[in-house]
Amino acid sequence: MCGIFGIFDHDEAANLTYLGLSSLQHRGQEATGIACINNDGTKMEVVKRGGLVAEGFGKEEIRRLKGKKAVGHVRYSTTGASIVRNAQPLYVNYRHGDLALVHNGNLLQSAKWRTTLEDKGAIFQSVSDTEILIHLMSRSDAKTLKDRVVDALSRVRGAYSLLFLGETGMVAARDPWGYRPLVIGKIDNSWVFSSETCAFSLINAQFVRSVEPGEVVLVNENGLQSFFPFKEHKNKAKCIFEHVYFARPDTNMFGHSVYKTRVRSGRILAREHSCEADLVIPVPDSGIAAAIGYAEKSKIPFAMGLIRSHYVGRTFIEPSQSIRSFGVKLKLSPVKDLLEGKRVVVVDDSLVRGTTSRKIMDMIREAGAKEIHLRIACPPVTHSCFYGIDTPTREELLASSKNNREIANFVHADTLGYLSKAGLLDSMGDKNPESIYCTACFDGNYPQSPSADLATNMPPSV
Amino acid sequence: MCGIFGIFDHDEAANLTYLGLSSLQHRGQEATGIACINNDGTKMEVVKRGGLVAEGFGKEEIRRLKGKKAVGHVRYSTTGASIVRNAQPLYVNYRHGDLALVHNGNLLQSAKWRTTLEDKGAIFQSVSDTEILIHLMSRSDAKTLKDRVVDALSRVRGAYSLLFLGETGMVAARDPWGYRPLVIGKIDNSWVFSSETCAFSLINAQFVRSVEPGEVVLVNENGLQSFFPFKEHKNKAKCIFEHVYFARPDTNMFGHSVYKTRVRSGRILAREHSCEADLVIPVPDSGIAAAIGYAEKSKIPFAMGLIRSHYVGRTFIEPSQSIRSFGVKLKLSPVKDLLEGKRVVVVDDSLVRGTTSRKIMDMIREAGAKEIHLRIACPPVTHSCFYGIDTPTREELLASSKNNREIANFVHADTLGYLSKAGLLDSMGDKNPESIYCTACFDGNYPQSPSADLATNMPPSV
Amino acid sequence: MCGIFGIFDHDEAANLTYLGLSSLQHRGQEATGIACINNDGTKMEVVKRGGLVAEGFGKEEIRRLKGKKAVGHVRYSTTGASIVRNAQPLYVNYRHGDLALVHNGNLLQSAKWRTTLEDKGAIFQSVSDTEILIHLMSRSDAKTLKDRVVDALSRVRGAYSLLFLGETGMVAARDPWGYRPLVIGKIDNSWVFSSETCAFSLINAQFVRSVEPGEVVLVNENGLQSFFPFKEHKNKAKCIFEHVYFARPDTNMFGHSVYKTRVRSGRILAREHSCEADLVIPVPDSGIAAAIGYAEKSKIPFAMGLIRSHYVGRTFIEPSQSIRSFGVKLKLSPVKDLLEGKRVVVVDDSLVRGTTSRKIMDMIREAGAKEIHLRIACPPVTHSCFYGIDTPTREELLASSKNNREIANFVHADTLGYLSKAGLLDSMGDKNPESIYCTACFDGNYPQSPSADLATNMPPSV
Amino acid sequence: MCGIFGIFDHDEAANLTYLGLSSLQHRGQEATGIACINNDGTKMEVVKRGGLVAEGFGKEEIRRLKGKKAVGHVRYSTTGASIVRNAQPLYVNYRHGDLALVHNGNLLQSAKWRTTLEDKGAIFQSVSDTEILIHLMSRSDAKTLKDRVVDALSRVRGAYSLLFLGETGMVAARDPWGYRPLVIGKIDNSWVFSSETCAFSLINAQFVRSVEPGEVVLVNENGLQSFFPFKEHKNKAKCIFEHVYFARPDTNMFGHSVYKTRVRSGRILAREHSCEADLVIPVPDSGIAAAIGYAEKSKIPFAMGLIRSHYVGRTFIEPSQSIRSFGVKLKLSPVKDLLEGKRVVVVDDSLVRGTTSRKIMDMIREAGAKEIHLRIACPPVTHSCFYGIDTPTREELLASSKNNREIANFVHADTLGYLSKAGLLDSMGDKNPESIYCTACFDGNYPQSPSADLATNMPPSV
Repeated sequence: MCGIFGIFDHDEAANLTYLGLSSLQHRGQEATGIACINNDGTKMEVVKRGGLVAEGFGKEEIRRLKGKKAVGHVRYSTTGASIVRNAQPLYVNYRHGDLALVHNGNLLQSAKWRTTLEDKGAIFQSVSDTEILIHLMSRSDAKTLKDRVVDALSRVRGAYSLLFLGETGMVAARDPWGYRPLVIGKIDNSWVFSSETCAFSLINAQFVRSVEPGEVVLVNENGLQSFFPFKEHKNKAKCIFEHVYFARPDTNMFGHSVYKTRVRSGRILAREHSCEADLVIPVPDSGIAAAIGYAEKSKIPFAMGLIRSHYVGRTFIEPSQSIRSFGVKLKLSPVKDLLEGKRVVVVDDSLVRGTTSRKIMDMIREAGAKEIHLRIACPPVTHSCFYGIDTPTREELLASSKNNREIANFVHADTLGYLSKAGLLDSMGDKNPESIYCTACFDGNYPQSPSADLATNMPPSV
Repeated sequence: MCGIFGIFDHDEAANLTYLGLSSLQHRGQEATGIACINNDGTKMEVVKRGGLVAEGFGKEEIRRLKGKKAVGHVRYSTTGASIVRNAQPLYVNYRHGDLALVHNGNLLQSAKWRTTLEDKGAIFQSVSDTEILIHLMSRSDAKTLKDRVVDALSRVRGAYSLLFLGETGMVAARDPWGYRPLVIGKIDNSWVFSSETCAFSLINAQFVRSVEPGEVVLVNENGLQSFFPFKEHKNKAKCIFEHVYFARPDTNMFGHSVYKTRVRSGRILAREHSCEADLVIPVPDSGIAAAIGYAEKSKIPFAMGLIRSHYVGRTFIEPSQSIRSFGVKLKLSPVKDLLEGKRVVVVDDSLVRGTTSRKIMDMIREAGAKEIHLRIACPPVTHSCFYGIDTPTREELLASSKNNREIANFVHADTLGYLSKAGLLDSMGDKNPESIYCTACFDGNYPQSPSADLATNMPPSV
Repeated sequence: MCGIFGIFDHDEAANLTYLGLSSLQHRGQEATGIACINNDGTKMEVVKRGGLVAEGFGKEEIRRLKGKKAVGHVRYSTTGASIVRNAQPLYVNYRHGDLALVHNGNLLQSAKWRTTLEDKGAIFQSVSDTEILIHLMSRSDAKTLKDRVVDALSRVRGAYSLLFLGETGMVAARDPWGYRPLVIGKIDNSWVFSSETCAFSLINAQFVRSVEPGEVVLVNENGLQSFFPFKEHKNKAKCIFEHVYFARPDTNMFGHSVYKTRVRSGRILAREHSCEADLVIPVPDSGIAAAIGYAEKSKIPFAMGLIRSHYVGRTFIEPSQSIRSFGVKLKLSPVKDLLEGKRVVVVDDSLVRGTTSRKIMDMIREAGAKEIHLRIACPPVTHSCFYGIDTPTREELLASSKNNREIANFVHADTLGYLSKAGLLDSMGDKNPESIYCTACFDGNYPQSPSADLATNMPPSV
Repeated sequence: MCGIFGIFDHDEAANLTYLGLSSLQHRGQEATGIACINNDGTKMEVVKRGGLVAEGFGKEEIRRLKGKKAVGHVRYSTTGASIVRNAQPLYVNYRHGDLALVHNGNLLQSAKWRTTLEDKGAIFQSVSDTEILIHLMSRSDAKTLKDRVVDALSRVRGAYSLLFLGETGMVAARDPWGYRPLVIGKIDNSWVFSSETCAFSLINAQFVRSVEPGEVVLVNENGLQSFFPFKEHKNKAKCIFEHVYFARPDTNMFGHSVYKTRVRSGRILAREHSCEADLVIPVPDSGIAAAIGYAEKSKIPFAMGLIRSHYVGRTFIEPSQSIRSFGVKLKLSPVKDLLEGKRVVVVDDSLVRGTTSRKIMDMIREAGAKEIHLRIACPPVTHSCFYGIDTPTREELLASSKNNREIANFVHADTLGYLSKAGLLDSMGDKNPESIYCTACFDGNYPQSPSADLATNMPPSV
């Protein structure tokens, strides 16, 4: 998962991109980068760092990014060690000048594309699938930045929300299925783009609308223009897991308040898996809204039985003697006085590998809880994602091979209840949600087959 | 405010002190330090840094602190710029060898003591009041570390929870009024001391008991011994503001769960200042427990209407154009979809200067709230603290000169309700709480007069 | 100017490259980088930094470069601010796997090549001319790394000493004119390459021989093989300015001891421009050897009248009040007791812009020297270099527009004498030196015209 | 050994102290510090760092040192690990306000003094002998800063050049024997003090005169006043080893040019230990001047056969395989082309432990030298210094137990010749030099006995 941000024609482009990325930090903590083009459009500066936005960049570095147009990126994880090399924005200098690109999503068949391009002499800076797009644009005969973007995108398949920064303008694009979010805002008289609306809050930008699935948006000195160059589908495949886990609760995504859908999911979860208990406690922070919903519906009192530390989280000290659940304790502490002798419902947003959950259950029990009833505000995750979420391989997914009872045993819970797929779709509050959302990670029903051998459709000039 | 931690005779003394201080980080973010004595008791190493524990120390630095006995400190704030010079542990080499000292609290009449000692030739490293104690110990005729501590403490007045690390042992002491907390724990076979029990949770130490008001505890190779060398009072003056604001909710302080007293205070607040509203929302994190109590009692739904950012908080970027409430937005974001058109009760733990509250009220209103009813889970803060909390001067205390209506106007709330002093004392759940807790910041009833001209009682050898 | 280093099949490849680059640091202080390929040849790691080798890399960073094959680079200067982006090694992943490249020299017609390649869809990471070679290699039909190198090099013109590190081996190449140095050494059983022999000294490698002008050397598991794939010229154009200024005096370059040629140049200079004086003093360090030669021949005593500081050199403090010659004083201090009242011959290696020389003359005069006779151990620099030395444009070259008298006035010397071109060539000790060395910067006699419109000779596959 | 610097009443006090310390860096590389008092004399800031001046301080840090009076220090070495704690300036706040102190030298009987003071209740921050002076000043009844300095100094013995910075002025003092240097300069209208004149060169200060042995100089708003409060001796004991090794050659110390005395010592050395050889080569940089003298006198050509690296010197990389003489090679490289087959005279300033010399001899021989004749420009060092130079214990001094032949064998030289004591004294160019200079390290003739049991003479108020 990644977060992207862009701003066009603002005096504080680099500053606001820095702040916007900070607000999107929950979407990626591994690496970050900003590209900024100077005011006469002739020189682009790119800075990239491993780690968090607030740690990665120096004050001087941001100050040096002079110019009114910028795009930025936060990255969740990369296989392999070359963190900075695979960080974005990708930058190149090609025959149309400087170009920077940020991407949230995942292109299908990227290995095949890469081979095909390399056979034509293409050379790559990174191992990222995103770089394919630049090569397709470079080889395109199209005359404008926007047309080169459209040409390149028309040849590939997969999930993408993209921002391109060139010398003549900025282009935003979202794939026709609409897997990943991308929104448009306005600050002063400048257009801004962001993966989530929460970034607009911080900088006081006004949310305008979403980039639509299949839409390509061009911003240049003439303002903002919208294009729908791709063949339309009826069905969309917006990632429902964004609402379950990734998005910040203060974001409005796909037209819905993330906080509210989570509260609703908690209410439905309480209906589907009721329970005799003394307290409902969330796993903070992502389980809080669902737990509030669960508590409301079940009439069991809500309590913050686990405290999330604001400071301890990151430390290089690992005591040599074993401290049970140490890794989890750095982030969460149980309120013993509250849990002692109690039957507790623990509400979490999702359960993927189960290893952290087990440590949390152990910690709660050690703090004195008599019974632990784990409730998960989404269905069992049984399938890998090929559209941009770094879910583990199927083998590592707890629910791909274990039944409910086995999972409860594995995580040391007394009982376990998952929200049903119907319940989750219901919590979104749409009509016909199955034709709007991708639920492949819960049901293996992939909108675009990741394994079919797609023809790689090369540009004419190659 | 400060946090102190000590550990005696453990193979991982420096590591565990580092982790313990991390858990106490909420008690002081300005500076931190650790002193560690090597195993043959002949060399003490001290490291001090400005900033957070996790940022201040390098891995190598902690590794170099070899030895099984250590004390550490986190510091809230110092007037003046010389942050590291005033950081603790204070370290000296005197005729009885190396000595390190950490202090939470505040000695009265420190300026007068200083002058008196300087007139006798004493020289000071820092501007801290704590250094007085070292001079008194150095001039004492007492034969042991513990007796020198007792001799020095018998001459001064004020608030202190202290840990002394010398070549022959560790001494913990708490003033007879018991203003500041200090607890004893055990890990493996080693004794540990901490300002709060939450530090024991992280390192899996067992909470044993509090150091009692007026108690001096000696730990050496013979184990732990307890002394009560000072004349006893009947009344105590434990700082009730620790429960209101400072302590972490998972701490058990003065025999009570901080989380539970806060929930109770919220319930009483709901009774004292009920309200017609749609939602109860806390100012996270310190207002959460009281808001849960308020919601329970008032039957108004609880909601996390403000999201606390885990990443944005610290940034060097200050946009040059004004973004309204920017400072607050770096930490908190409103959930607009939730607040829009709603009448909300906002619950906060306390209200001191009011400047931050005003920004929060503005932010909530900007997010669409129709009415804002601010409820504060403690009485108006009208008096400065002389026992270790860095409250502003009376002039800066909002409630020292304004009435309830004026304060509501100042912070831009529609209505404002403070918990009464009786309600706060009630929330502690003790009998005769007025003889147990210090409420001077609410009523000006100072247990020890800060202004009386106390005789400075010098040691005989001076 | 740059320095390059490579090592093939050694357990300490990254460590020794680090040390080798440190020895070549005088050839470039702006940026540095190392590429290392892991042992199964499947992953290449690249680290690049602005600044010095010893400051740029962290210990951990070098440790992570596991693998037995590495190349490295130090860079003198880049126009523009994106120091790290233009640092080398250049790294790409292309259809033949990973490839890293380091270059000392300068390709001619690089702008034209770039345009031609971009028109074929090529995209560039940097503004460096070197990147052209990678695109030509990527588009080559040749089957092996060595043949791709030869194919690419056969299409370009200019000055290059190059090292290529691919998955199947390392290739070293030197252009047919032999402008830039490149030598082969052996350490244990591993082959090493370096711009100068001084890097071999530090790591105890044995100097084996030079890579010859026009030679391409392949090292792989079968050992070292030599190829001469290019049409031969009779004449060579080895850069004589390497001997004058760039190389370290303990290096043996182009078959000659740099120290000795400098001493010889000083002797000839004394013969050509004798002088009545009390002392011969060098501008340290590069003028020392020539000054020794001058003193020997002239019988005027040699003295270290200027002391080079080992510490002050680099500082961020610039006093706000003006200190005359401050910039020079940070590096050099006059020995006043020695200079007072004396007639001094000051010997420097070269005179390019003259601004530093003027400050040095002023400083010496301020220290009390009665007469200053400046002697330069090379001819007037009148023409820019297009083969890899970053000489200024002709306009900035002091000697391009001023005569000897005007230059003496400009630098505040009483008299000025330049070594003649014949004298300089003579100091090399070769027969027919004019057919061996490039002296274009002194006479404008360019071996390959930088301005002729060369046909860009594209590979067949493009 | 240490270096001290002070400046009184200059707008750029901190900047110039930073630069002055940079010029004195050769006197101490372990730690450095600056104290600066603000303009109303009420607040003193102190910064201290391990390592070099240019690395230790940040730009911001120096900027924060506002105020027109400053003192600074560079420190050579401290036993024990607490580098920063023992760094200077020592700073205290005592009854007369803030006081900072920098010291070059060594007090005798410091352990005894410390015990005596501690028995009176004194507490120490560091293990340095210098801190004794502050306690004595603090306990003094004297009314002014200068008188407190005099009072304190009248009670102790040993070697000291000192600068005191208090709220009312600056005091400079030099012990009656005059072991360590201290000079007075003027810049604009401000007084400056420095261990060596070379610091004045960099900042364009004018050298005025030395602080005389036994002189106490007070600078305050009334200007500079001189006092000679101590009983005078006839004999002085200026450290001749300063001229041999410590001082920078561009310094004028004790009235003599360091460069010139070294050249003279080389000439005398050539007379005392002549030799058949092809080349005279110095061990740079400290052996250069003596080698020039040797070459002049012996008529053997002078050559820079060893090149000192400006970059390699400091590295964290230690190859795991052994590289012979690696440590020395990081600093020095032999010019093989010069040394091959030659008989060389190697001139070094001194020979203390011999371990580095041996590596240098090995390196020269490995580079092809046929014969090595080592010549040392001072007598054998046979006794430890108690006056401020960190010579090893007698056991570690090569010459304390080995004769000339054994030492030659130990360092792998073919022949070895030391300058005689008479020759060294002669090179100073004074009449009766034996009553002016301390030569204890060569002859054990200690001006003040370090072992006699001196009475500790306490101030009346203690």
